[in-house]
Amino acid sequence: MTTPAWPHLEGIAYGGDYNPEQWPRDVWDEDVRLMREAGVNLVSIGIFSWGLIEVREGEFDFTWLDDVIDLLHANGIAVDLGTPTASPPAWFFATYPDARAVTKDGVALGFGARGMVSHSAPEYRTAIARIAGALAERYADHPAVVMWHIHNEYGVPVGEDFSAHSVRAWRLWLQNRYGTIAGLNAAWGTAFWGQHYEEWEHVGAPAAAPSTINPAQKLDFARFTDEQLRACFSIEKQAIRAHASQPVTTNFMANQHHGVDLWAWAREVDIVSDDHYLWAADEEGEIGLAIAADLSRSVGGGKPWILMEHSTSAVNWQPRNIAKRPGEMARNSLSHFGRGADGILFFQWRAGRSGAEKFHSAMLPHAGTDSRVFREVVDLGAKLSRLGEVRGSRVNADVAVLWDFESFWAQDLEWRPSEDVGHDERIRAFYERLWRDDITVDFALPGHDLSRYKLVIAPAQYLLTQADAANLTAYVRGGGTLVVSFFSAVVDENDAVHPGGFAAPLAEALGLRIEEHLPLREGGTAEVAFGDARLSAGVWQEDLVLTTAEARGTYLAGPAEGQAAITRNRLGEGTAWYISTRPDAAGLQAVMAEIYADAGIAPAGTPTGVETIVRHGDDADYLVAINHGTEAVSLDTSGFDLLTQEEIRGTLVLAGGDVAVVRLPHAADGSGR
Amino acid sequence: MTTPAWPHLEGIAYGGDYNPEQWPRDVWDEDVRLMREAGVNLVSIGIFSWGLIEVREGEFDFTWLDDVIDLLHANGIAVDLGTPTASPPAWFFATYPDARAVTKDGVALGFGARGMVSHSAPEYRTAIARIAGALAERYADHPAVVMWHIHNEYGVPVGEDFSAHSVRAWRLWLQNRYGTIAGLNAAWGTAFWGQHYEEWEHVGAPAAAPSTINPAQKLDFARFTDEQLRACFSIEKQAIRAHASQPVTTNFMANQHHGVDLWAWAREVDIVSDDHYLWAADEEGEIGLAIAADLSRSVGGGKPWILMEHSTSAVNWQPRNIAKRPGEMARNSLSHFGRGADGILFFQWRAGRSGAEKFHSAMLPHAGTDSRVFREVVDLGAKLSRLGEVRGSRVNADVAVLWDFESFWAQDLEWRPSEDVGHDERIRAFYERLWRDDITVDFALPGHDLSRYKLVIAPAQYLLTQADAANLTAYVRGGGTLVVSFFSAVVDENDAVHPGGFAAPLAEALGLRIEEHLPLREGGTAEVAFGDARLSAGVWQEDLVLTTAEARGTYLAGPAEGQAAITRNRLGEGTAWYISTRPDAAGLQAVMAEIYADAGIAPAGTPTGVETIVRHGDDADYLVAINHGTEAVSLDTSGFDLLTQEEIRGTLVLAGGDVAVVRLPHAADGSGR
Amino acid sequence: MTTPAWPHLEGIAYGGDYNPEQWPRDVWDEDVRLMREAGVNLVSIGIFSWGLIEVREGEFDFTWLDDVIDLLHANGIAVDLGTPTASPPAWFFATYPDARAVTKDGVALGFGARGMVSHSAPEYRTAIARIAGALAERYADHPAVVMWHIHNEYGVPVGEDFSAHSVRAWRLWLQNRYGTIAGLNAAWGTAFWGQHYEEWEHVGAPAAAPSTINPAQKLDFARFTDEQLRACFSIEKQAIRAHASQPVTTNFMANQHHGVDLWAWAREVDIVSDDHYLWAADEEGEIGLAIAADLSRSVGGGKPWILMEHSTSAVNWQPRNIAKRPGEMARNSLSHFGRGADGILFFQWRAGRSGAEKFHSAMLPHAGTDSRVFREVVDLGAKLSRLGEVRGSRVNADVAVLWDFESFWAQDLEWRPSEDVGHDERIRAFYERLWRDDITVDFALPGHDLSRYKLVIAPAQYLLTQADAANLTAYVRGGGTLVVSFFSAVVDENDAVHPGGFAAPLAEALGLRIEEHLPLREGGTAEVAFGDARLSAGVWQEDLVLTTAEARGTYLAGPAEGQAAITRNRLGEGTAWYISTRPDAAGLQAVMAEIYADAGIAPAGTPTGVETIVRHGDDADYLVAINHGTEAVSLDTSGFDLLTQEEIRGTLVLAGGDVAVVRLPHAADGSGR
Repeated sequence: MTTPAWPHLEGIAYGGDYNPEQWPRDVWDEDVRLMREAGVNLVSIGIFSWGLIEVREGEFDFTWLDDVIDLLHANGIAVDLGTPTASPPAWFFATYPDARAVTKDGVALGFGARGMVSHSAPEYRTAIARIAGALAERYADHPAVVMWHIHNEYGVPVGEDFSAHSVRAWRLWLQNRYGTIAGLNAAWGTAFWGQHYEEWEHVGAPAAAPSTINPAQKLDFARFTDEQLRACFSIEKQAIRAHASQPVTTNFMANQHHGVDLWAWAREVDIVSDDHYLWAADEEGEIGLAIAADLSRSVGGGKPWILMEHSTSAVNWQPRNIAKRPGEMARNSLSHFGRGADGILFFQWRAGRSGAEKFHSAMLPHAGTDSRVFREVVDLGAKLSRLGEVRGSRVNADVAVLWDFESFWAQDLEWRPSEDVGHDERIRAFYERLWRDDITVDFALPGHDLSRYKLVIAPAQYLLTQADAANLTAYVRGGGTLVVSFFSAVVDENDAVHPGGFAAPLAEALGLRIEEHLPLREGGTAEVAFGDARLSAGVWQEDLVLTTAEARGTYLAGPAEGQAAITRNRLGEGTAWYISTRPDAAGLQAVMAEIYADAGIAPAGTPTGVETIVRHGDDADYLVAINHGTEAVSLDTSGFDLLTQEEIRGTLVLAGGDVAVVRLPHAADGSGR
Repeated sequence: MTTPAWPHLEGIAYGGDYNPEQWPRDVWDEDVRLMREAGVNLVSIGIFSWGLIEVREGEFDFTWLDDVIDLLHANGIAVDLGTPTASPPAWFFATYPDARAVTKDGVALGFGARGMVSHSAPEYRTAIARIAGALAERYADHPAVVMWHIHNEYGVPVGEDFSAHSVRAWRLWLQNRYGTIAGLNAAWGTAFWGQHYEEWEHVGAPAAAPSTINPAQKLDFARFTDEQLRACFSIEKQAIRAHASQPVTTNFMANQHHGVDLWAWAREVDIVSDDHYLWAADEEGEIGLAIAADLSRSVGGGKPWILMEHSTSAVNWQPRNIAKRPGEMARNSLSHFGRGADGILFFQWRAGRSGAEKFHSAMLPHAGTDSRVFREVVDLGAKLSRLGEVRGSRVNADVAVLWDFESFWAQDLEWRPSEDVGHDERIRAFYERLWRDDITVDFALPGHDLSRYKLVIAPAQYLLTQADAANLTAYVRGGGTLVVSFFSAVVDENDAVHPGGFAAPLAEALGLRIEEHLPLREGGTAEVAFGDARLSAGVWQEDLVLTTAEARGTYLAGPAEGQAAITRNRLGEGTAWYISTRPDAAGLQAVMAEIYADAGIAPAGTPTGVETIVRHGDDADYLVAINHGTEAVSLDTSGFDLLTQEEIRGTLVLAGGDVAVVRLPHAADGSGR
Repeated sequence: MTTPAWPHLEGIAYGGDYNPEQWPRDVWDEDVRLMREAGVNLVSIGIFSWGLIEVREGEFDFTWLDDVIDLLHANGIAVDLGTPTASPPAWFFATYPDARAVTKDGVALGFGARGMVSHSAPEYRTAIARIAGALAERYADHPAVVMWHIHNEYGVPVGEDFSAHSVRAWRLWLQNRYGTIAGLNAAWGTAFWGQHYEEWEHVGAPAAAPSTINPAQKLDFARFTDEQLRACFSIEKQAIRAHASQPVTTNFMANQHHGVDLWAWAREVDIVSDDHYLWAADEEGEIGLAIAADLSRSVGGGKPWILMEHSTSAVNWQPRNIAKRPGEMARNSLSHFGRGADGILFFQWRAGRSGAEKFHSAMLPHAGTDSRVFREVVDLGAKLSRLGEVRGSRVNADVAVLWDFESFWAQDLEWRPSEDVGHDERIRAFYERLWRDDITVDFALPGHDLSRYKLVIAPAQYLLTQADAANLTAYVRGGGTLVVSFFSAVVDENDAVHPGGFAAPLAEALGLRIEEHLPLREGGTAEVAFGDARLSAGVWQEDLVLTTAEARGTYLAGPAEGQAAITRNRLGEGTAWYISTRPDAAGLQAVMAEIYADAGIAPAGTPTGVETIVRHGDDADYLVAINHGTEAVSLDTSGFDLLTQEEIRGTLVLAGGDVAVVRLPHAADGSGR
């Protein structure tokens, strides 16, 4: 039994979550008819249907699911079949009340929402193997079923679990990690505050405590939590593989939830899939979208992936849920597509009348087919149907931005120098600059082989092991350009400050040492002299002592007045920059301009508000162009516009809000634009 | 045994809560002497005295209460006798620890405050029947006792209860409501998020959960909570009725607490009574007061009611407790009186030295009798003593504003399109406009017979059943003028979106359908062209598709730019307006001016800051006039000023801050002014 | 066995917390070498080492501690030996899970931080006696050990405890306080809200409740909590005294934590010691520091004390942890010294790599010896080594500011007239004025003998007993000048409003009575006419009725417009001022200028930003001068500068940021400057 690399489907996958169990049977017929009208070729079903399939423990009723799958198949719509394990049924919790997740305050979470289970509970693990196996056994050979969708958004709404089951599993996990209790004491630094352990049985989860809990303990608990979730995934995957060979995925929440380490998860799935929702308060949500899409591609090693969920218009769980503007759904979809998604799916097909998500938009909204949203859904289906030849092509990038979940977990612990410092903000700031310069980005871990990148940026690498620091240093020495932002390389894998002081592992690469962090008071800013310019910068300064680095920016005020703010160090064939403060957007632009020059990167000069990405196929390259502005723009390009089916000769005119996918002559070198 | 419609009292009731058990015996004599000086004729006693009457379970000591009641009676002061069931004694909770209310996080609430009981606990229900019965038996025939005051402010401080007693009762309540578990599954839409139930025993209360709980479940739990409280009331009333015939009340918190459905409660009491406290941060607290008073009158079907509690000056539980200004207490009292209150009582007679409410003002303040407050109390007593002939007269209104607790409960559930939308704000905005135009208002349910009103406004009818929508449609067709604000008629009684989309049940009345909600970002506003005017409006827009309606206002910016913002639809003999955004106060004034014209309503042109209401008696009408401003005003009226005992001939001059009650010649048509 | 009044040490103590157990053995040798370089002569050890000493219950291993103490002794460094009872070991909680502290919501706090124990648990009390006794027995005669450091910062992170152990102890405490349950009912005013008790067993701790808990109950619980902690201290002290005679201390948190009554604690320790950390958001943290230092001196009755902990630079637990500027550490240290500290210690010697406080600065920072911080540490050691002759000298003050923890506890209870009123703010406002005028201040209780002070200020004496009010009145009558700020003398020791109204016990002293509190709305201000000036004032007004007082300031607006705002009353030989509002800083300056005149106090005219204090020794007085500004200033003085070892003849020139300690000719009268 071999697993195909992609679901058995023609062209680009298009569709969404489909929950027929929420509707009377006669609605199903209308559903499939309208799906066909919209060009839907793939739907995800069964994701929350456990209690309707296994109606009592061990007692299965597949009737309605058989009917749905047959109906879809008869209409040429393939099925991404969910395992419903994100929401065990009422009978499960009534039978196994101890299998509920418990908060850090000791509250066992109750039924009525979803996701309340303890992933460490043996009864849960038994139950998910049973239901996943039963589904796989029944539908392994059904021609409609082209993919398995295990669980849903691992880690939300609940990840950490302080139940007795969890604590038992945690102690075993620690024994496995550290071998001896002395090893744990050393790693956690338990001599601090009298936290020494003599017995494994005395070690608890980091639950409610009177003060800040040992940070190494909390960091390990985050690792443990991530691994417990992944263990459950593996149980399900194994149960499926006992019967079925279709590819397996689970839907990530890249750039929206940091509780699971997507680098590790991506190794476990056959196909990366991602859910992405715009953050409505962000008037440039397309930048956050691009981050999520690039991350989804990057964790999968560059392979095509599936956008498993996004929204046709507003979501329902934000403070203010802003509807998408006309054309925005297509622009969003094409940005995902351009960044490597070969499937564009939505939550969900038909807006549900009941339940907590009734105000979430859908492909078929409450207003019905005579609506802007449905018309745009039909149009998008038509567009995607013309893009089948692009499938499987890849995206290349010259720039890598470091993205390390373990470092995020460590940085998010309590009692840091300044609450104004955040990894998300720093990553967004650098990414945003690159996005505005229309430069395509990969994300990477600091231990990855980075030699293929002209530029590597570490916006928020608070935790950096000695080994990874050595890797970055070697990257520089070998000719790379490295940019490190402040509060990086501070601690090792146990959240212990590196011997030698902050950033000591990067001392050679950066050519400096850091005597002291100098966070500013709330709202404080100071100017930095940078060449002839004066940059405004805030939040943070540092007391830098330069060894081999040169000062390229100097503080004109603040606690480090007169000292180096931004430095540049030559090492071997390469260059390393250090930015010890938070420049504003204009300031970062000025700094990055010089860094680009070091790295041999030149922004393409794409018009403002226009986003382009190139996908490289075996036979052709494809320019995906998205105009986020309201005015028409002209792009210098030639080729064949797959959407309009028109030949482009030198100039692509892209109307305000419009998108284009242009087949280019194949570039010999395979590089990005 | 028949129950009189009003307590056996002369004239307007005047007094307050009296807690003699907090004071030595010799203070009581001073109390009654000063009560007489102040014109007090009714006091509420015993409201928190359970433990001092039933000193151990089943063991009663009425000595002190006998003394107090006799003393009051000897001084001509009638008694509103409380049942002390809002605060069971320490022995009760020590004996029945499981009868404590439990929070959604599972914390059993402790003693030391008040209101910690589970209203579903059988032991509590037994105990309240016993104490209420014992009091009724002893004092049924005491001539001082003219009314029974059951419990205190049902629903505060605790309404919802997640104890085991509550969960048991909840399951029975659900069985009674739905009959079958399939009925519950259908009503709650449990196919969503895998919430299907096979057994009643698996259904829990909406306690702590990892994410948003099923909204229909929460809405039903609100209904259940309300009904559990009312069941306790009924137990007490029945225990009293076994012995006594005086009228029974319980003090509501109209416009301050929305946890109980006052429409249902008003059907159970013999006399509506209300507690009202100004919200100090509101510099026009008199508008909120008027809402509360009109609501108290309306839920009682227009019958006179009693203001059971208000304050002589500051309260003690707000962030900043602002003292009333000289004369403000009288203005507040007369506004309640004008809006139908035939009793004006305070919390409390004498300021308590100890306990959580020591900083609450009282009729006799800490400063004693030589104080502004006490002098005003005496003056108010004198004023009210001249108003006895007004008792029993009624208030008529041409305008009804819809006020529906069930809809509030539903709208307050989680995950709505925008957190900037609130029913209180919308009701206040429309009511405030009517108040400034000095137009008297009734509140009503959407299912009421509305035919007597010229204008009906639905500021916040998020939940609207098909039947109630039909009632509103019939009201329009029959010649009424209906105004509907946005985010109305969205869901049915199970918080399920209406088939056909938002507001579909009002599609005929409004002449439009709503494709999509378009909430704005935080602070966002846009102009609306309305006739020649440009209105500023914020929070919300909608994508309207007009069928028979005409656009009267058009968005000049925002997501619905160029589309209809405010519409008017003719149906049958009537007119229905729809306002799909939140105009600012000036904007609403402009819109309402046109709506008044449709409804045949003309504001009286009362001077700014002056409030007038007319009470209609069998023999005369009475103009109650209140000048909230600091300057004297002139009102065109004639009659006899009951307060000054002077004849008014054509012009009533009302000094700044002053009040008047003028006996008018009886209007033949019985209409409001 | 007699206890010396000061640890056996030469000169001023200098050093810090030392945690060698966090480091390998070879680091210890470097530590002591660098300590000698820095002039360290005292370190505190063992404070968090319980689990490394008593490795299992009753099983001790002193090996490493022997080694550390011997090593320090061999290098001439004395030891302040901690009892590690602030953080019991993991085995303790595993053996006695019921000995954990419980939150008001019933959550038993878990291991992994520190301070989670129930101080009422008998098992804890047994265990602390055992460990303290064992340490004392072993090290009583070790020549290095010069002081015992019991526990750590009593009251933080957890003071109040709602465990079953605590509730049991609480009932006994109440029986002891009140004798009869009737006494408790009277004191707590339980007739309010039906809180009457018949049995001691029915009385609970003020845990989670549905509304505001009885304030007298909460106030007593604060007293109980304080006493439970002190009882634990006494157990340890007694266990030590069974073997050892060195002085005993415990480190207070003056002006940072108000949970323990330092006046009572200071009676129990042999030497007062204090931990002080700057509040980084306060740009004038030196004023808060001066308050803490003056309070530390005052609670100890003026005896020299030890600054047990402060920081060399940033701390780690604030939202933004601001590093100290060059010289700031020395200025801080000298201010403590000037205000009576004869020991200057830090938390901690060497910055820890692991744990929750790794970002806390240290004498030896992460950056190592080649750092600004370490150089300043060495320099400070050298400075202090020249100040040995000052040891034991005293500070005199003409002004006392009342500081009463019980009143703070009472004022911090719920449901007060305005949340804008705070005792800390009021004390800081008055103290800040005195600090800017360079006037030295003692703190005092209202029951103290105040006759030696020219001026007594009561900024926040909300709770004032009749006896203490009489003491203040006698102080005025005897010629003193008293200043009382608003919301003072409101309640008695049971948080009951005084008979006669607010501030009635001070009616004679102040010559007025208060009819009503008139708090302002948020942000509200009004002008006060004060002589020819107009002061701006906010938060609060009052309705004052003057009897013998004269109005010195009059409200020009607000609810008390036209009434007295600031009054002055002559009584006997003295004067009492009352300030019924919150003037801004300029306003307070104007008022205080007149009050100084009444009190016969004249500010010295010290240049802005310069702080001076005089320490009076048996043989000489010492002027401690600190220039917080950046510019050099000249002070008129003569003597010998101990730091520069130069003679000062008439003018001391103090560079920006610099400090000086000048031996003055001995003043004959012993007065302050």
